[in-house]
Amino acid sequence: MVSQGSEQSVMVNGYDPGAAAALTPAARALITRRERVLGSAYRLFYREPVHVVRGQGAHLFDADGHDYLDAYNNVPAVGHSNPRVQAAVAAQLATLNTHTRYLTDDVIDYAERLTAKFAPPLSQVIFTCTGSEAVDLAVRMARRVTGGEGIIVTRNAYHGTTSTVAEITPSLGPNNPIPARTALIDAPDSVRGSGGAAAIAAFTEQVRGAIAGFAAQGIPFAGMIVDSVLSSDGMRLEPAGFLAAAAQVVREAGGLYIADEVQPGFGRTGAWWGFERHGLVPDLVVVGKPMGNGVPIAAVVGSEHVFDAFGSEVRYFNTFGGNPVSIAAATAVLDEIEQRDLIAHSAAAGQRLSDGIRQIAADAKRVGAATHIAQVRGAGLFIAVEYVSPTDGVTPDPQAALAVVQGLRDRRILVSASGTYENVLKVRPPLVFDTEGTGTHPDTARFLEGFAAVTRDAGQ
Amino acid sequence: MVSQGSEQSVMVNGYDPGAAAALTPAARALITRRERVLGSAYRLFYREPVHVVRGQGAHLFDADGHDYLDAYNNVPAVGHSNPRVQAAVAAQLATLNTHTRYLTDDVIDYAERLTAKFAPPLSQVIFTCTGSEAVDLAVRMARRVTGGEGIIVTRNAYHGTTSTVAEITPSLGPNNPIPARTALIDAPDSVRGSGGAAAIAAFTEQVRGAIAGFAAQGIPFAGMIVDSVLSSDGMRLEPAGFLAAAAQVVREAGGLYIADEVQPGFGRTGAWWGFERHGLVPDLVVVGKPMGNGVPIAAVVGSEHVFDAFGSEVRYFNTFGGNPVSIAAATAVLDEIEQRDLIAHSAAAGQRLSDGIRQIAADAKRVGAATHIAQVRGAGLFIAVEYVSPTDGVTPDPQAALAVVQGLRDRRILVSASGTYENVLKVRPPLVFDTEGTGTHPDTARFLEGFAAVTRDAGQ
Repeated sequence: MVSQGSEQSVMVNGYDPGAAAALTPAARALITRRERVLGSAYRLFYREPVHVVRGQGAHLFDADGHDYLDAYNNVPAVGHSNPRVQAAVAAQLATLNTHTRYLTDDVIDYAERLTAKFAPPLSQVIFTCTGSEAVDLAVRMARRVTGGEGIIVTRNAYHGTTSTVAEITPSLGPNNPIPARTALIDAPDSVRGSGGAAAIAAFTEQVRGAIAGFAAQGIPFAGMIVDSVLSSDGMRLEPAGFLAAAAQVVREAGGLYIADEVQPGFGRTGAWWGFERHGLVPDLVVVGKPMGNGVPIAAVVGSEHVFDAFGSEVRYFNTFGGNPVSIAAATAVLDEIEQRDLIAHSAAAGQRLSDGIRQIAADAKRVGAATHIAQVRGAGLFIAVEYVSPTDGVTPDPQAALAVVQGLRDRRILVSASGTYENVLKVRPPLVFDTEGTGTHPDTARFLEGFAAVTRDAGQ
Repeated sequence: MVSQGSEQSVMVNGYDPGAAAALTPAARALITRRERVLGSAYRLFYREPVHVVRGQGAHLFDADGHDYLDAYNNVPAVGHSNPRVQAAVAAQLATLNTHTRYLTDDVIDYAERLTAKFAPPLSQVIFTCTGSEAVDLAVRMARRVTGGEGIIVTRNAYHGTTSTVAEITPSLGPNNPIPARTALIDAPDSVRGSGGAAAIAAFTEQVRGAIAGFAAQGIPFAGMIVDSVLSSDGMRLEPAGFLAAAAQVVREAGGLYIADEVQPGFGRTGAWWGFERHGLVPDLVVVGKPMGNGVPIAAVVGSEHVFDAFGSEVRYFNTFGGNPVSIAAATAVLDEIEQRDLIAHSAAAGQRLSDGIRQIAADAKRVGAATHIAQVRGAGLFIAVEYVSPTDGVTPDPQAALAVVQGLRDRRILVSASGTYENVLKVRPPLVFDTEGTGTHPDTARFLEGFAAVTRDAGQ
């Protein structure tokens, strides 16, 4: 079992300075320089950080040319160093890069293509540079339009890092204060709690309770924001429909329902948007991360009605938001997703990968392995593997999850852990997973081989 | 005189839908599509918006190939479509683009180069994507480190657009509420107020008053943030030293002094940073706009002491912040500024341009022109031209400033207006102004020719 450094209380799977002796002298020197100039707010992944110099498709390479299988990064959705994105950005940078207060064509073309991916009345978009900015703007719009303040989020939600968004991001830990105008509710927990209609009722009951709690404190209600796959709560997908039921309660109380699609959006779940599986049309949608394949761009999508209530009174200008270069990258990403049929691919590859993980989990259980997987949950290429105590089958086992993260890292396979109890393996590769290289499903094969080995080792 | 649309109350120099008839059918159609999909929060510059398709150096080009002299945009500091930035970004996008939780070299190299431009104890940097994010983080750090809430800004300050930063951005207008934890003070006004020691005393007295006001309301004090050239207050440069005196009062009261260098930074004023002319070392510095020549990157620079007090308790992660592609752009910008000696150039070209404007203003005054320029203020290639009533020499004349903006636009020279009274012409071209093209100082010559013609026309 891997030792638990003090870092873990701050960030799961963080660099452990105590493990520095195991690093190469070059890596140690680089980390020393890094700590001196970037300071203590920065964190590195892994007890032994990964020093990368090149990326291609679903693979990263270190300075020695070693190949890492990237099963974690959702930003390079259409692949590290994607040639179409690269060419589009390179061409645009040689032509024009300015802001949205001059009239340019491409931002309008892209806005029309993007909004066409949503059901009415979601027909307008405002561009920002980051998901945090987009969440911040969506919350600001919700507060302005409703006249309210109170926002409901899930108990281990992550929505971003501006001052306002940190207020609704309890997963930043105990040193990040959550004010009274943020209400926390529990995500459905299919390992420890009920399922089906009972889970939906329990969730909506909490939403009603939070709204009543705001009223009791004299805090007018503004709305609710939820990551449509509840990534940082450990990826809570079931029962389908619980978010639609919650959205209805929110609207009946005069609030707006905001879908945070920064992680699930753009095909990750095997559909364009994660909220689709809940049969839901949000009031506002926030998109980001994979939108420009790493070139900064994010957005808020909403109805003309909501946007007008905000925009006719307050202008919004984001100097780099929707600039021609970011739009060129985002356009290339849409082209890649559509022309390479990456959404259907995400669904199929995700099914294959999660089936394989389930099989390994079942095999491990049969031989009485020391680690125990309660559930393998997935939607497309976003897969959660939840570790619990084999004794009772419910007590979270974050050490087991972290050991798998480290064991896979030792085999040069990149994932991380997440969830309320930090006991959930987060497998979330670029959408191009398995589309390049030789052999049938080469990335899945490599992942499952590594995962089986790590699972086997854990029993020894 | 140009008519004043209702837009002006919202944004000076905004598009006037009433002038749509004067546009080409293509531009009208594009604006219709734009309004449908981007919505009402977006604003266009100019009664007749400029439709741009290409940029090079200090020039933009429209669809018909017409050449616009860009005397306004500070983001493309090293020139529109700068070849070095283009090549660096294109190469990096073909190699690696990931985040700062893996170990990479270039972000550390750049961080060391950037922090070396500041005096001790400013030695650390946190990267964000936008100036708004960086201001938001700086304010969050100041609040955390001091335990305070109250922030002092100038009365027409612009600092950005997150929820928290909008609270300290009174220039967003009457529909943007300013809460009690934001105190507004007047910038020195060398046209209407005193100068020298009296102006410094008046400014610091207001800072003391704001701190006392917070105390009276039970709002603990956090600090003060000022754009080092007070751009949106109309560019207030004199008397040099008034910001140092204010910073001292802020520190004595336990607050942090934050320099907003998003507009003045990176050589704009003829020095690396705008605060230098005040003989000041801030506690935190925010940089942005020109940092990546339009590729989104911004940052907060501070001391290890302040960063530790924040970062040891709260992690900060910005997915795209300091990514290898943005760092490649920022590195190319530093190379350009240093190797082309653009800071000395900014000082010299700015002096030439402001001298020329002053001469035209003096000539106009001599012949009794209808418009009257009270002052031409400048620091490097950031020049403010303040229009007042010729009758009393102090009453702001925003119509005159707007007429000059429009008149220059008709001659394909781009500037805008700003300031508390919207009566200040803002001339702020790319730093490469005058470095390309044929003839001696071709951009200055073209600007002054156009400015003289517009000034002449205004008298008719």
